[in-house]
Amino acid sequence: MPFIHVDLETGLTDQEKSELTQQIVEVTHAAIGSAVEHINVVLREWPGANIVEAGRSLATEPVTA
Amino acid sequence: MPFIHVDLETGLTDQEKSELTQQIVEVTHAAIGSAVEHINVVLREWPGANIVEAGRSLATEPVTA
Amino acid sequence: MPFIHVDLETGLTDQEKSELTQQIVEVTHAAIGSAVEHINVVLREWPGANIVEAGRSLATEPVTA
Amino acid sequence: MPFIHVDLETGLTDQEKSELTQQIVEVTHAAIGSAVEHINVVLREWPGANIVEAGRSLATEPVTA
Amino acid sequence: MPFIHVDLETGLTDQEKSELTQQIVEVTHAAIGSAVEHINVVLREWPGANIVEAGRSLATEPVTA
Amino acid sequence: MPFIHVDLETGLTDQEKSELTQQIVEVTHAAIGSAVEHINVVLREWPGANIVEAGRSLATEPVTA
Repeated sequence: MPFIHVDLETGLTDQEKSELTQQIVEVTHAAIGSAVEHINVVLREWPGANIVEAGRSLATEPVTA
Repeated sequence: MPFIHVDLETGLTDQEKSELTQQIVEVTHAAIGSAVEHINVVLREWPGANIVEAGRSLATEPVTA
Repeated sequence: MPFIHVDLETGLTDQEKSELTQQIVEVTHAAIGSAVEHINVVLREWPGANIVEAGRSLATEPVTA
Repeated sequence: MPFIHVDLETGLTDQEKSELTQQIVEVTHAAIGSAVEHINVVLREWPGANIVEAGRSLATEPVTA
Repeated sequence: MPFIHVDLETGLTDQEKSELTQQIVEVTHAAIGSAVEHINVVLREWPGANIVEAGRSLATEPVTA
Repeated sequence: MPFIHVDLETGLTDQEKSELTQQIVEVTHAAIGSAVEHINVVLREWPGANIVEAGRSLATEPVTA
């Protein structure tokens, strides 16, 4: 524990994935004392058409003419 | 809030994705009064081989001879 | 399918839960054609202190003096 | 109910997916008495670069020189 | 990996929780070869009023007169 | 986006919840450039009996004599 899941839009580089997951592990350890080897993270990436953020679709093109 | 996640089988058109997410936003607003700009939705699509629905696999082909 | 999960703040009445889940089932059926008996919904409620929405905590009281 | 989600690394064969989901259905039925036709499972697969397990990234190559 | 989440209705005894989680660990190990110490499970319990299964609410009482 | 979910054992103080969620927001912003007002976090807490971590139950007492 903990098990951390991050749903976000596709497009991260492997460098960004590494940076994001590593930083989340570090602050989780620092904030609540979890041993690093007990922390798990999964990034779940989705195309914009699959996401509505704050009431707005992230689809980049209109789906109707 | 709320954060809404929908796991379902692949195969939706972008038009269906747009229709589904937009409708979910609207009824969530109507049913519990959430401001539209506070509603988030993610569609998470999976191949049938990854899904068991109501005890039955959605794999389209048998995996053993 | 689909499996729909809704994470939101505690405080819904049973009437609101019923209204929200019923409406989500109906629009999912209407938007993508899923048979009603194939639609599953779970509402997952959390206290405000457990939620950051759009960068702001929903804790109702400050945690530090 | 129940709705079971399994996040894991990509690379399973369809045979392994079938075996895993079928076995989970069976033990869930046996352990808590759920009717088989009430059990749902989704396998969610991710590349290693998206996963930190027990504090270590599953990326197979370093992201920095 | 894997990270396994089970959403289900409240009411399991601790004995049932132990049996269910232990069995899921064992079959996951057997089916796809994951080392037992790499398997994580969380049971997430919800009242019936929060659940729609196969299109029907699990609320035990009607929410309207 | 992103939507971040953290499943962990019960027992955090409100101060720890605030520290953890605030830190996750900050590093997510720093690592991948998400605007802070686009970042959402939910902490989902569970009793130890509901959790198997790395193959071991977090139940504090044996469930069988």
